[in-house]
Amino acid sequence: MGAVHKLRGARGLAGDGPLRWDGVTLEGYTDGRGATKQVLIGPADGAAHFVVRYFEIPPGSASTLDEHAHDHGVVIVRGRGTVLLGSTEHAIMSGDVVYVAPEERHQFRAAEEPLGFLCVVPPRPS
Amino acid sequence: MGAVHKLRGARGLAGDGPLRWDGVTLEGYTDGRGATKQVLIGPADGAAHFVVRYFEIPPGSASTLDEHAHDHGVVIVRGRGTVLLGSTEHAIMSGDVVYVAPEERHQFRAAEEPLGFLCVVPPRPS
Repeated sequence: MGAVHKLRGARGLAGDGPLRWDGVTLEGYTDGRGATKQVLIGPADGAAHFVVRYFEIPPGSASTLDEHAHDHGVVIVRGRGTVLLGSTEHAIMSGDVVYVAPEERHQFRAAEEPLGFLCVVPPRPS
Repeated sequence: MGAVHKLRGARGLAGDGPLRWDGVTLEGYTDGRGATKQVLIGPADGAAHFVVRYFEIPPGSASTLDEHAHDHGVVIVRGRGTVLLGSTEHAIMSGDVVYVAPEERHQFRAAEEPLGFLCVVPPRPS
């Protein structure tokens, strides 16, 4: 059976402040750097083929420098910053789309405001 | 290798007007009802595990009434409207998240402004 997870506050993605959804747990992410993760669609919904997560990175902070077998489909939904893909850094902002290939080194960094992005992964990422 | 597809116009997801991305083809969708589809991440990027699309439905119009074996992970990014899941209609707006289960009847309908949403599917959906 399908599900709807309402964004709290009826402000839409363009509203100020952190994004939180009904029925979705806020998890910590990145030791001590204040980033957060929310699994918007995943095993709890019965989704077997993909997982949709939302990450938010505080101003000036960054996601972990990662390199792994699974790929990422990313859509930036708030803020601006940079993404490192391999050895190239790209400027990114709300609305931009990033594909991170398998085994590609990557890191997302927030500029002077929080950087929020949706991130799709295959189920049970390695 | 990864890729960045920039949203045109540097307005962010919250900007007015239709959303278009560099390097992404605008496709028609729904016969004669004016909806559009853009494949933001897919086979052209080398993505083998999921496809991320963006759909935009004109005011008062709707997606096709669908029922199929693959599931959908949806995030509304602009506008408001309704989604039919099975026999239940839910109000939705920017930021809300919808999981459409396999074989679940579903239809997205725009209210008085365009309804734009990201939609994740498994590769080669049936």
